[in-house]
Formats: sequence, C-alpha cells, structure tokens
Amino acid sequence: MSEKARRPRVVIVGGGFGGLAAARALKRADADVTLIDRTNHFTFQPLLYQVATAALAPSDITAPIRWILHRQKNVEVLMAEVQAVDSERRAIRIDHALREIPYDYLILATGSRHAYFGHNEWEPYAPGLKAIEDASEIRRRFLLAFEKAEKSTDPTEQQEYMTFVIVGGGPTGVELAGAMPFIARKALAPDFRKIDTHKTRVILVEAGPRILPTFPADLAARAERDLKDLGVEVRVNSLVTKVDANGVCIGEETIKARTAFWAAGNLASPLGKSVGGPTDRVGRIEVNRDLSVPGHPEIFAVGDLAYLVQDGRMIPGVGPAAIQEGSFAGKNILRELTHRPRKDFHYWNKGDLAVIGRSRAIADFGWIKFGGRLAWFLWLFVHIMYLVGFRNRLSVLLQWGYSYFTYGAGARLITDVERYKPQTSRGSSAISSQ
Amino acid sequence: MSEKARRPRVVIVGGGFGGLAAARALKRADADVTLIDRTNHFTFQPLLYQVATAALAPSDITAPIRWILHRQKNVEVLMAEVQAVDSERRAIRIDHALREIPYDYLILATGSRHAYFGHNEWEPYAPGLKAIEDASEIRRRFLLAFEKAEKSTDPTEQQEYMTFVIVGGGPTGVELAGAMPFIARKALAPDFRKIDTHKTRVILVEAGPRILPTFPADLAARAERDLKDLGVEVRVNSLVTKVDANGVCIGEETIKARTAFWAAGNLASPLGKSVGGPTDRVGRIEVNRDLSVPGHPEIFAVGDLAYLVQDGRMIPGVGPAAIQEGSFAGKNILRELTHRPRKDFHYWNKGDLAVIGRSRAIADFGWIKFGGRLAWFLWLFVHIMYLVGFRNRLSVLLQWGYSYFTYGAGARLITDVERYKPQTSRGSSAISSQ
Repeated sequence: MSEKARRPRVVIVGGGFGGLAAARALKRADADVTLIDRTNHFTFQPLLYQVATAALAPSDITAPIRWILHRQKNVEVLMAEVQAVDSERRAIRIDHALREIPYDYLILATGSRHAYFGHNEWEPYAPGLKAIEDASEIRRRFLLAFEKAEKSTDPTEQQEYMTFVIVGGGPTGVELAGAMPFIARKALAPDFRKIDTHKTRVILVEAGPRILPTFPADLAARAERDLKDLGVEVRVNSLVTKVDANGVCIGEETIKARTAFWAAGNLASPLGKSVGGPTDRVGRIEVNRDLSVPGHPEIFAVGDLAYLVQDGRMIPGVGPAAIQEGSFAGKNILRELTHRPRKDFHYWNKGDLAVIGRSRAIADFGWIKFGGRLAWFLWLFVHIMYLVGFRNRLSVLLQWGYSYFTYGAGARLITDVERYKPQTSRGSSAISSQ
Repeated sequence: MSEKARRPRVVIVGGGFGGLAAARALKRADADVTLIDRTNHFTFQPLLYQVATAALAPSDITAPIRWILHRQKNVEVLMAEVQAVDSERRAIRIDHALREIPYDYLILATGSRHAYFGHNEWEPYAPGLKAIEDASEIRRRFLLAFEKAEKSTDPTEQQEYMTFVIVGGGPTGVELAGAMPFIARKALAPDFRKIDTHKTRVILVEAGPRILPTFPADLAARAERDLKDLGVEVRVNSLVTKVDANGVCIGEETIKARTAFWAAGNLASPLGKSVGGPTDRVGRIEVNRDLSVPGHPEIFAVGDLAYLVQDGRMIPGVGPAAIQEGSFAGKNILRELTHRPRKDFHYWNKGDLAVIGRSRAIADFGWIKFGGRLAWFLWLFVHIMYLVGFRNRLSVLLQWGYSYFTYGAGARLITDVERYKPQTSRGSSAISSQ
C-alpha cells in the first residue's frame, strides 16, 4: 500500500461519456488513475439506434477504451466487473469480489440500464437499447422477423411478423421508430419475393400524453407529424400492461406483433446503492453540488448515475451532461490535490436534438427552436464531430453517405448468437468479463 | 404442386462461393430457383482471419444473400436449416424437418466445418475459423487474453495468457499466426501498462513435416522463414495429443498457453451423407465428372462438399474451385433444361496465394512462383476485386489502408457474448435459424 510518498489513487468506474471525461480531466494530476469497465470499449450511445436499425456496424460507433487513453500515462485501464463499493475501507471489489482495489478518490460513472417497471419478465420479448450487444440483438430480431415472414405461408402470421411495437416515446423510441419504416419499405423491399414489406407496421407506444416529453410541446407535435408521415403509428396515453411472444397489451387491447422493443424508463446501475448515500426512485445517487456523494466527500457520481437539480429541473441523462459532470468531478479532485477549494457544478445545456427518420430532426436551443432538414444536418454534424477517433468518424461518414443513397446492405448482418432466450432470465444470459 | 406446365424447381443449399455461383449461372434458366442458407449472409471466407485478428469488422466481409441476388427475379432466398435430403421423394426437409421443399434439381454447396479428428472435446479450448461467428470468437479470445494478462499479478500466468498456439500449418493457420505477432507487439503495445506485449509468443504447430503442404516445398520454406522473421515459432512433425484450458500437448510435452486456435482438418457438411452416394473419409461426396452424385443425376455437389480428382490430384477446397464448380453445375442444369447434353467439369487452377503477416505472401501459378511484397500486393488486389458488393470493397480498402498505417483500433471490439463455454458441447451452443 505505501511506498515513500504514495501518489493518490483515483479509481473511475465506467468507461462511457462520464468516465472518459473524468479520466481526461485528470491528465495533469499527480495521481494514479485506474479506469474500470465491464467491456473493453467505449460506445457512442447516441448512435446505437443506427446499429440497431442496420445502418452502421458495431465497430463504427465503438473504440477500445485503452486505445482512447493510451497516451495518458497516468491512467491504467482494467476490464473487470465491479461488484461493490466498500466505502468504509475505501476500496472496490472486482472479479466476483475476489479482488480489492483501494482508492483515495472514487468516481462512479456506471450509467443506467433500461427498466421494466417491475416486469423483468418482459425483457426477453422486448429488449432495450443501452449497449452494443443490445443493438446487435435488436437488429437481429428486426431482420429475422422479415426472414420468418418470408418463410411463413399464413398471411396473418406474416403480418404479425411484419408488425413492430416500440414501447417508449422518448428520443430513443422516436429514433428507432423513425428509422424502421424506411428500411422495411425501401431498403428491404427488393430483397423479398413473397412478402410485401410495404405492409410493415411500426407502432410507437407512449404512456404519457405526448411523445418527447422533455422537448417543447410544439416541437414534439412536429416530430409526431413527421413520424406519421414516415408511416409510424403513434399511440399516446397508452400504458403497456403486458408484453409476451404474441404482442403488446395496452389495457384490454392486444397489438399482435412478434417483435417488440423497449425504450421506456431507466434504472441506475445498482452500484449506486452499494455506496450508501441517498438515492432517488430509479436508483440515482442524489449528489451534492460539487458532485460528491453526501457523507463521502471522496466519492463522486456523474452521468446517468447522478441526480442533481438545477434551476428547478433535473439535469437530464444525456451525453453532454455526463461529459460535463465527469470532467467537473475530475477537476474537483485536481483542485483538491493542488490544495485549491472545490467548486460547484453548473450544467450548460447546449441544446437538445432528436432525429426522426432519414432526413428530419428537431432542435431546441432555448433561444431558438426548429425542425426539418436543417435540424437533421445539424444532428449529423454534431454527431460526427463528437465521435471518438478519426477512423470511426471517417468510416461513419462514408457509411452514412453510402447508406443514404443506396440503402446500404453491408450492415444487415444477422449473426447466430442469440442474446436473450425467452426461457431464460436476463441475469443468466449476462456474461461477465471473466 | 402442378399448375399447367410447371416450371422446374432448382434448390440450392448453401450461400457460399459455390451456391451463389450456381444461382448466378441459372440467371437465364426458365426455372424457379430457391437458395437456402442457415444464415442471412454470404461470408468472404478468405478474409475471415482478418476479422479474427481485429483488422476488419464482420460487416466488411459479409453481405446479405438476398441483397446479392435481389435483381435475379427467378431466385428466392430462404433462411433455414436443412436437416436432410430425401433423395427418393426428391425433397429436402427444413426447420426441424417440419417442412418439405420439393426439387427437380438439387445443388448441394454446404461446405465444411473444421474437424477435431474424433476429439470434439478440444473444440471449446481451440475454436476453428469457418464462419463469421468463429472469427468474432477468435478475436474475442485473442483480445481478452491480453486483458487477463494485464489484470494478473503472476508473471508465469501473464506469460501463459500471452502465449497463443495455432494448430494446423495450412493457409488459415499460417495467416492467423502471421497476423498475431504484429498486432500484439505493435498495435497493442502502447495500450497496456503492466504487461510487455513484446513477450507475446505465437506458436504454429503442424503434424506433417512442413507447413503449407499444398504449396511447392521451396515456397513453403520461404513462408516458414518469413513467419520466423515475424516472431512466430514454427513446430513441424508435432502431432497434438491433447488440448485443454492449460495448453496444448505434443506427445509428452505441454505448451502452456491459455488460448489456442484450430486450423487443422475439415469435415464436410453432414448433409453429404444423407444423400446416400459414396463419400470419402472426411464426408465429401465423390461426384461424377459432370459434378452429379452417382446414382442421382438430378443432384449435384460442389465446393468443399465435393470430392473429384483431376490429373491425379484432388481439386482443392478453395474459393475459386467452389465458384467454378457451382457455376458449372448450374450450367449443366441449364443445358439439360434446354435439351443440350451435360459437359464434364474441368478445374482451372488460376494460382495459389497465401499471405504471411502484414506485407508478405507467396504465390504459385505453376509457370511462375514468387514470394515477398509483390505477392502480397497481388493477394491484396485479388481479394479486393473478388469482394462482393461495392460498399464492402471500398470500405475494406479504406480500412486496410488505415489499419496498415495506424494499427487501426476500431475493430478491436470485444462483445460480451461468449460462443463456446468450456462446459458445454459444440452442438448445444449452435443455435438454429429458428
């Protein structure tokens, strides 16, 4: 533990937007930084839906965490699953709790998973979209549904295979729903002989009174019109009561569909609770204004794991907020290491964007709101600029360009590894890094 | 079954080089062609090792079969697993034998899988390389080994993780072995803090007296020198007697290695035996000179499933042979449909190429043999030209160019879906298209 004047040890858990920003903020810190993630790669989550809808390949939106940080010599990257935080002994436990890693400062950036409101039995029938494996699974099911429809000889069954229900009208649900009709009706149409893919139904189900509740009402209304133009059936005020192999139930009604996807609700990583600080109803840690955990000034929580209110509104669970928080937590540690006082975090909302289909989006910058093709170009520009790594940026740009004009086929790959099997629970199919 | 003058029905099983070439040869046939494959995609097998060694992404070397054939209106594509051929009733059985598809002509192009010489218990410890999922699994294990070495605190264990054994000195084994030292020692070196990836050992084990037995002895000797220059340990006359989690045994000696790969020996698809014709020791159908199965003039076998001797030598199980045979079988059917006599197949060996590492290859055209960088450029050119689909061709060229100069990181993706678990057998982890 101690050799002469030991350098302080900062452990960051999670290699997403928040964790990477924290590591980078500690670049000049006289400290040993360890970043731990379950996977070996950073995932650019805002584009996951593009992998899920077969427009991009998984490698286009991922990059190895080691590679992103390889020039930063004070950072060590470990691929491991963190089981618990022992905040009394100031150590985390990894690898089935067999090994301990001590820390002086801890930054938790483990994000969230999709939640089923106490109905985890729905997950096998309606996978969510948080990690690259989720995106591959959604793509697999989406494409397989057409293969099965083509093989079927029963028109009713064919239509059930060609009906897709997306639960949740937030940005992810809107992006998924908006992309699917085009792929089905244009890209896939010439490939099939027996089915008419123009009959594909895409139904977006939202429990609340309107889609995109975090956007201004007029922009959300425009997005709903755009979705309907694309052929998406939008159903608001529709609380899902059951999901199974036959379809999705809304109250007494059953939408017959063989394939459903889940984009409703998040649950923060369970690590948040193991720290022992106050958490909100979805498990987020209610952090102090300096982003530290109440009662544990040496522990910080950022991104989707943190709950913080600013100007009467919760800071949203989006990439830019995670980046700003991660960076700020890192800087607060840096301040303390150089004997300066900590500061309070202030979120700067640069604007919200949501994309609808192939060429429309909505943009909300507070001082200006707009939709349509201009918003879509802005969305494209922002996302390409933010992509980690030059190779991916160029590759994505080319792939998008090519897909845009040719309805690109290369990414329409079904691999035969099934992630969820209906008979097993989510827990048993999740394979740890060991 | 019969409406007026029924068009003859040609069923092709397998969407690899042979099956696709057969379908294309039937382009102008007045027949209904059905191509059936377990997967939805064609895989460019000669480049699988590039996916396995993280240089290319799976989507770079695959394309949906439907998409490849979508302009050919007399072809219908089905994604299904063929269980058996009922040659008496002239029908194949798909989907757990629940459904039958009748044929007038049948072309079998189901290829081969790697074989373990009666030791299937070795497969979990030494996966082979035939399909895109195999390549992802090899990549996963290769990259995970370094992650585990970095986490380990025991130098002996670290070295075992950084030792890779490749069994089989044919082209696939040579390609895999040749690519690994470079990735380990150059591409991965800056990413790790605790391990020195220059200590990586790559050991190529061959049972016979020399590697690349199908190439002339002087070229094979050159390839062996090239491999040694790259840092590969080549062990010939070394029969593997055991493979388990600790390593690979050669007689009494154990090579301690946590990761092994299998590139030795093939077994033809079991469908060959269900036809009832004569088969050789690895299950290939001994076809007539017109590529039909003895006793069944309406059934053809092509590619790795067919055994045919020409000029005293077996026609090799390589892509060009499968393409020529598939095309020829299709044309023989076309001839018969237009009341012309069948012809006998003649294989035209355009030359053999094997690549060694990042910039060397060997080429054998019969009338000329050479090695080195020129052979490598030829290899590059030939493979890019043959890649199906413009997008892939461009994408692969860019990716190669970029990887070549930067040791590209984008493809170094470990996804957490494990294909083989040591405790389960191969059979149970294979998921059918259903």
